[in-house]
Amino acid sequence: MKTLIIVAHPNLDESSTQQFLQAASIDSNVQWHALDNRPLNVAGEQRLLRQADRIIFQFPLYWYSAPASLKNWEDTVLTRAFAYPAAGGALIGKQLGLVISLGQPAAHYAAGAPEQFSLSQLTVPYQALAQRLQMTWLPSFIVDQFGYQSETQKMQLLVDYQRYLTQPSLGHFEGEVDWIVTKLAAINTHQHGPEQQKLALIIDQIKQNEATLEDLQDTLTMLKEGED
Amino acid sequence: MKTLIIVAHPNLDESSTQQFLQAASIDSNVQWHALDNRPLNVAGEQRLLRQADRIIFQFPLYWYSAPASLKNWEDTVLTRAFAYPAAGGALIGKQLGLVISLGQPAAHYAAGAPEQFSLSQLTVPYQALAQRLQMTWLPSFIVDQFGYQSETQKMQLLVDYQRYLTQPSLGHFEGEVDWIVTKLAAINTHQHGPEQQKLALIIDQIKQNEATLEDLQDTLTMLKEGED
Repeated sequence: MKTLIIVAHPNLDESSTQQFLQAASIDSNVQWHALDNRPLNVAGEQRLLRQADRIIFQFPLYWYSAPASLKNWEDTVLTRAFAYPAAGGALIGKQLGLVISLGQPAAHYAAGAPEQFSLSQLTVPYQALAQRLQMTWLPSFIVDQFGYQSETQKMQLLVDYQRYLTQPSLGHFEGEVDWIVTKLAAINTHQHGPEQQKLALIIDQIKQNEATLEDLQDTLTMLKEGED
Repeated sequence: MKTLIIVAHPNLDESSTQQFLQAASIDSNVQWHALDNRPLNVAGEQRLLRQADRIIFQFPLYWYSAPASLKNWEDTVLTRAFAYPAAGGALIGKQLGLVISLGQPAAHYAAGAPEQFSLSQLTVPYQALAQRLQMTWLPSFIVDQFGYQSETQKMQLLVDYQRYLTQPSLGHFEGEVDWIVTKLAAINTHQHGPEQQKLALIIDQIKQNEATLEDLQDTLTMLKEGED
């Protein structure tokens, strides 16, 4: 699975959030593509989109939407001939997700809270885009006030972000376990001796836990069926 | 009441919709302000906003939002020091409305219809802006596929648009009648002889109808109170 991250930020070099995310995005199947002020090469942009399975719009929330550079990209690159399902339909079946970094606490985006509207409401124009182009809409990935996060929170953010970029089946527990096992196995090829054995045991334990959980879920399903 | 129309359209000269609206907007209390590609004069833009009571964002809907030039204007002009209620609060109490021209039929913007989302849902980012800056949110004014409208529909559009720009109290029947009476009286100062008398009679009739309607409403209110 190939992931394309389209980054819209007017001062990328000055954003510690984006620097952190860029460092966390290094993966042979992930392409980091930052928009700048140069004129867009429409054919080149469309080629990148065609190669991707998962497309991410990544941006800080400015006035409840992406910076203007992303809108300019949408209006320029997503031509009717390329994108409309009745015409080119180049994006049909691909995934679309948002990575939104917030200057206000995420909890402020709710009815009754200071911002009044939820992020699910504010991102409706992007959901409409996905719907129109027959793309699969992913749950948004929210970076909640990065500057205030502890080191532990940032480590968690790093893992969650890598999962968001590369885990094939998002939002499913099994997909999550498979992803973790694959990552740990990759790390273990660089370990030696006792460290390697220890990590191998951890991986076995995770797999075993998952099997146990699956058994429990089967039992639960049977019990429920008995009740009905 | 002063109205400022901020027009965002990448090819204004080629848009028959915008040409029509510009011709319909001529009024001493209405300022037409089209965004172009030149760098924004932030102080100048903020001065225009301070002078206005009603601020209109006018644009064609591109990918479920305004063209990039309006977002760039928002991100550049609406600085924290100028706009945030806790800081400058320059827009507190002013009105914010959208004039949106559609290439698809307005009826397509509904759950179950081709676009799936309503215009009230798609415009949430602007509603959030108004909420944040303590502005009064106006119902949006929709120009439904101008190119397909009949001459009669266009005449109706012209009157409705002028009302949207200049009627002090939008969405109230009394405000509407007052607006019509004022406009007709202004027209009548340029009439002579029998034409002037005829129009004066029409104006009287409209006023009389409104008085009758108010009496009926009073009676209805009394009847309802009796029921409770």
